Amino acid sequence: MTKTKHFMELALAEAQAAGARDEVPIGAVVVLDNVVVGKAGNRTRELNDVTAHAEIAAIRMACEALGQERLTGADLYVTLEPCTMCAAAISFARIRRLYYGAEDPKGGAVDNGVRFYGQPTCHHAPEVYSGIAEKDAANLLTTFFQMKRTEG
Amino acid sequence: MTKTKHFMELALAEAQAAGARDEVPIGAVVVLDNVVVGKAGNRTRELNDVTAHAEIAAIRMACEALGQERLTGADLYVTLEPCTMCAAAISFARIRRLYYGAEDPKGGAVDNGVRFYGQPTCHHAPEVYSGIAEKDAANLLTTFFQMKRTEG
Repeated sequence: MTKTKHFMELALAEAQAAGARDEVPIGAVVVLDNVVVGKAGNRTRELNDVTAHAEIAAIRMACEALGQERLTGADLYVTLEPCTMCAAAISFARIRRLYYGAEDPKGGAVDNGVRFYGQPTCHHAPEVYSGIAEKDAANLLTTFFQMKRTEG
Repeated sequence: MTKTKHFMELALAEAQAAGARDEVPIGAVVVLDNVVVGKAGNRTRELNDVTAHAEIAAIRMACEALGQERLTGADLYVTLEPCTMCAAAISFARIRRLYYGAEDPKGGAVDNGVRFYGQPTCHHAPEVYSGIAEKDAANLLTTFFQMKRTEG
């Protein structure tokens, strides 16, 4: 298994764990020098915090673990295309490479929506790699929302 | 003094306090039914957290205080035009009205940059009122960065 696939598998595991907690199943890991320094699933419901998306939770964890404000040289793996808030947070954290799974035409901000990394108000853009394990990532979300509709 | 001016004064006080802690002097307050339910200055350096902008810190405080994920009906006062990350967080939190002081052509995302609230991927837009105490808000930032350059 390639490193990329390995780290995306870890992000998928975080997404699955989030779903099991009744959170929208999205997961993220932050990797520096091949070591996972932050990992999280969506925690918005648990924490009553709309900013606790997987990417931001993982970035916060990494910054806390490393005792630094920025994550220069670190890579972020996330199962879904980051939203506008997270795309900007990833830029502020100086993430080197962003790997994401499924695209999000409704809420994404990397290859959809505001395409933040191509904007003049974006002062650091990561390299972006998309479509990694996208079917698994998308299936997790589809199943989750199907189940929600059945419950409702 | 109008209510608007009063709450912006509180945001300015948070900005000043942030500057005194050597943080970029930006402040925010969240108000629900004329009561301040969250207030914060920038805390990125203190917390080693690039997401700890004044708006996000104030929103998190308000959500924690109220024990809820969204702030429907609440208003947010902030001394500077929100950045892309915060503009999206304000939308996610369902803030009713956004009052801001100075514009930020370099990093703003409301009346500059990605103008998030006019985008199809924005699913809730607050009413926006700008230019409130903008000179005081801008002066705080100008003085702070002038001092930084002198120190450097």
